[in-house]
This record gives sequence, C-alpha cells and structure tokens, in this order.
Amino acid sequence: MREFELVDMLQQRLVAARSDTRLGIGDDAALLAPPAGHELAVTTDTLISGRHFPADTPAMDIGFKSAIVNLSDLAAMGAEPAWLTLSLAAPSLDSSWCDAFIEGVQSATRGNCVDIVGGDTTKSDVLMISITAIGNVPGGQALRRDSARAGDLIAVTGTLGDAAAGLDLWPRRAEAAPGEQTLIARLTRPTARQGVALRGLVNAAVDVSDGLIADLMHILRASGVGATLDIDALPCSHALARFAVERNTRRRLQASGGDDYELCLALDPETLGAAKAALGCPLTVIGRIESDVGLRLVDANGQALRDGIIDYTGWDHFKAD
Amino acid sequence: MREFELVDMLQQRLVAARSDTRLGIGDDAALLAPPAGHELAVTTDTLISGRHFPADTPAMDIGFKSAIVNLSDLAAMGAEPAWLTLSLAAPSLDSSWCDAFIEGVQSATRGNCVDIVGGDTTKSDVLMISITAIGNVPGGQALRRDSARAGDLIAVTGTLGDAAAGLDLWPRRAEAAPGEQTLIARLTRPTARQGVALRGLVNAAVDVSDGLIADLMHILRASGVGATLDIDALPCSHALARFAVERNTRRRLQASGGDDYELCLALDPETLGAAKAALGCPLTVIGRIESDVGLRLVDANGQALRDGIIDYTGWDHFKAD
Repeated sequence: MREFELVDMLQQRLVAARSDTRLGIGDDAALLAPPAGHELAVTTDTLISGRHFPADTPAMDIGFKSAIVNLSDLAAMGAEPAWLTLSLAAPSLDSSWCDAFIEGVQSATRGNCVDIVGGDTTKSDVLMISITAIGNVPGGQALRRDSARAGDLIAVTGTLGDAAAGLDLWPRRAEAAPGEQTLIARLTRPTARQGVALRGLVNAAVDVSDGLIADLMHILRASGVGATLDIDALPCSHALARFAVERNTRRRLQASGGDDYELCLALDPETLGAAKAALGCPLTVIGRIESDVGLRLVDANGQALRDGIIDYTGWDHFKAD
Repeated sequence: MREFELVDMLQQRLVAARSDTRLGIGDDAALLAPPAGHELAVTTDTLISGRHFPADTPAMDIGFKSAIVNLSDLAAMGAEPAWLTLSLAAPSLDSSWCDAFIEGVQSATRGNCVDIVGGDTTKSDVLMISITAIGNVPGGQALRRDSARAGDLIAVTGTLGDAAAGLDLWPRRAEAAPGEQTLIARLTRPTARQGVALRGLVNAAVDVSDGLIADLMHILRASGVGATLDIDALPCSHALARFAVERNTRRRLQASGGDDYELCLALDPETLGAAKAALGCPLTVIGRIESDVGLRLVDANGQALRDGIIDYTGWDHFKAD
C-alpha cells in the first residue's frame, strides 16, 4: 500500500464522531474544542515490536494494546478519553494488517466516544507505534500522584501478575491450556479501568504498567510519604494461582511484573466503600501509606520480607541487557 | 544513562513556564487548561534517523528540527504553539547527547512560550523522535486547507528548495563553501513561520514539508479547486541560484524538494498587502486558484511545462525504494 492510500483509508475509517472535534484527519493539525471549565489530560506512549509486545503479535492485538496503555494513563488521572493521535512506523504497509490494526485501536476505545484525529505514517526497519491520548477532566478534579497522605489505604483494582505470566507463556501459546490462555489474553488484550468513577474518592492514583512496586514508588516519592505493603494480599487470579504455584514466583510476578494496567490508589479508609461501589471491578486493600518514607514489604504474618525476592526497580529500557 | 536518570534530568530541565500548564512532566498525564473560547490545534510528526535527517546529524539539530516540523504544522493552522509531548526511542542514552537534543528542542520553541509536558523514552535499534504539538487558536479562526476559492492568489513565504539542495550537499558538507553551508543550514535548522499573523487574512494554508506541489495539491483537493502555478516565479535564495545553475535542476528542487517548512497560502488579492505586512518574512505570489480542477504548471512565458520535469507526487515513505 502507498502512503496516500493508507491516509485515504484512514480518513474514510476515522470519520470524527464527537461534536467537539471541529476538524479531524486531513489538515496540518486537528481542531478540538474542549469543554469549558475542564482541564485536558495529555499522555504519550510508544510501543516497539519485540520490546513492548512480541514481534509475532497479531495486528489487531497490537492496535488494541497501543490504545489501552494510553487510556490507562488517562484513567489514572480520572480523565474521560476524547481524542487520540497515532504515529505508525513500519517496514511496509499491508492493507489487511493496517485494517486489523485500526480495528484493534477502535475496539479498545469502544465504550468511550474517542476520535482518532491525526497522526502520521513512516517507513522504519522496526514496527513502532506512538499514541498521544487527550482526555477531559473537570478543573481541579484530576487524580494525581502527589497527594497521598499518611493513614491512607493502598488499594489496587483487578488482579496483578497475569500479564507477566502471559509473557512467560507466550513462546508455547499454541499448546496453552485454557487457564494459561487467560493469562496470555491479559498480555495481549489488557483492560483500562474506569478512573472517571474515582474522582473525589481517592487521594492519589497511578496506573500499574511497569510493575506494582515501581509504580507505587511514584506515588510515595511524589507525595513525600512511605508505605507498608502486604505482599501476600496482592489480588491473584485463579489462573495465576494455578500457573505460579511456587510462592516467590507468584510474588515476583505480582509485585514487579509489568503490563497489568490496573490502578493503584491511595484513599481515605472512609471512602473505600464508595470507591468499591463506583468501580465496575474488584478493589483490594494491599497496604497503608505512612509518614516514614520508604517502602516496607511484609508477608501475610506481618513479617518483613527478606531482600532479594523482589526487584524493586521496575522496568528500565536502558538497563544493560 | 538509566531511564530514571533521564526522566529526572528532563523533569529538572523542563519545568513548566506557562500558567495554564496545571501539571507538567511526572504524573500519568499532563494537565492543561486551554484558554476559553479557543480551539486546540493538535499535530503529530515522527522523525527517524536516516530517513528524516542524516544519521550523523548533531543531537542539537535533531532536537531543533523535530520541534520545528511540528511548529510549522501549527503555524499552517494559525495556531499559537503552547505544549509539546516528546517520545524518544534510541539505541542508548548518552547524557551529553540528551542534553544537546533537549537544548535543540527548546531553542526551536524560543520566541513562543512552549512547555514540554510529557513523553516517554524507549530503547530501540534506530533513533526515532515523535512529537505531538498542541496550540491555541480562537474558535473559528484556524487556517484550513479546504477554503481556497477561484480567483485567490497562491503565495509562498520565504524561499523554496534550499533544504533539498542542502540534502544533496550533506555528504560533502566538510568542504562546503559559505553559500552551500547556508543551504545545509536550511536542512538542519529550518524556520517555522508565524502563522498566527495570517489569521483573517488568508483563505487557506498548508505548510510545505513534502514539496511545494504535493502540499499545494492538498489545498486544491480539499477545496475542490484547481490552479495555475508559475514554476519560474518560485522564490529562490541567492545560495540556491548559485548552487542550481541548470534551470530544470532548480525547478525540481523548488517544486518537489521537501523540508522547506514555508507556508503556501491561498488569499484574496485584496488582502495580499496586509498579509505581507503582517508576516516577518517575504511573501511571493506564485500562481492563482481556478475553478477548473487540476494543477497546470507554466513557465515565465506562460507556456505549459513539458511533462517529466517535475515529480508531482511528493514524498511517499512506502514507495518501492
């Protein structure tokens, strides 16, 4: 496919649906009219083949995940997703691949009214997708990282560690049992949570993309607080419990595996019930914010965890391989 | 440099300066408060080493150009640049390279108050920069591609073809004469024009990045009109006139060379004087919009140009190499 054919195909498929999209794809820039009294939440994430997803991931899953990682960032701000721009760099453009990719992006945004309003296509030796997502949040109501307070509960949505297990399973996915396929699907088809429902109910929020501990540390550092985390309270799916029978394997996958796209929250104990009711998914208390800085890991008996079980540092793209 | 060190460095260097940047780098998303009654212009451009700039381009020039190509898109909308997000994929991160790169981005935005409010860094075998630029334009005042009218003059800012000549000169830049260095500088240090000054004065605008003819065609197609273009009226720098003595070489560089980042405008003859006065750069009339669709190229004598002199199609990243 030639570049202008792709642009034509995109223009036909990506007709703007939002009334506040004044001009979509096809000019030097899109024109958007955000609602009065709102702030814009803007986030960018880039995904590279072989690094952020296995090189043999189907096009629709790549599109789906590329959108979700950005929607998850907006969710962690309590913002309602509204617009995406999409940069695609690829070795070649196959029209059925592009079609499936766009289908994946669009199916990830279903349930929200999101317009793809711009982007570009470039030739590159490696497949790479960069998406910028823009959402709306009423002024002053965004969920930030810097306002956790001593005494807050730490809670996390859904379950942790499934996607990291799915990555371990990827090479033998053709023979995966149904439970294992569930774990793989958490890797290829993650869910973004409904952060909008948490406005006014939590003090701080972060999305869990680099591993729970690494992302919780962002809240602790930005808020100038510490925490104690019960490593054995981390919510675990049935599929993961069957896959990771050995306790420390499970702990490692749950506490430092990436790609969960759950929300980690700091909230007042009094609002826990309301937050649970507002979310359409489980919410599990896993620890407590404290005034002493640093993160203390304990097991189910309240005993401090031995060093060396968990990698605290999270994912670093530039760590020596 | 480790990724978190880069993020720390960026957070220190990229402190938000705009009062409407509610939250800059460091959370899941930035929070922006656009001015009431305005529309947002949003554009994304990706640059890949060896394709959009020579692989041995200095870091500062890469940063500079990555910003300018996006600012030029905002200029073509008549939008005032306000915010950038920046995705950087690189084989490794060297702190002095990053420092120079960011210096380049920031020096490109000088003269406008622009905050870099987000982005990410990723390891990749090839250096790639993706920037999303967001600007403000009063509601309904954006310069679009789709409102050129028969009878409009076609005009272009600055001079054309210099950067394309600079690319030809790049391999022997060490021995380049001063005039040739001027051409190379147009490639590595392009200028974005002040499109804000053109609000209310032009009917249509596009930035010239893929080559004049290819970009003018965007206006013609979007507006449902045609044009006659005087190929010998294209504004030519002294440096280019000396470099491209052969007439058809010069015509080719000017009409279909890329990377000019000038603005091509369609405007009522009556507003030409005001547009010239408003711009801080030369504005040259090069043709006229007509109701007959299609583009007709003529020479200085008004004679139709022979086919085969100019490639009409512009740059296509996915054309068979």
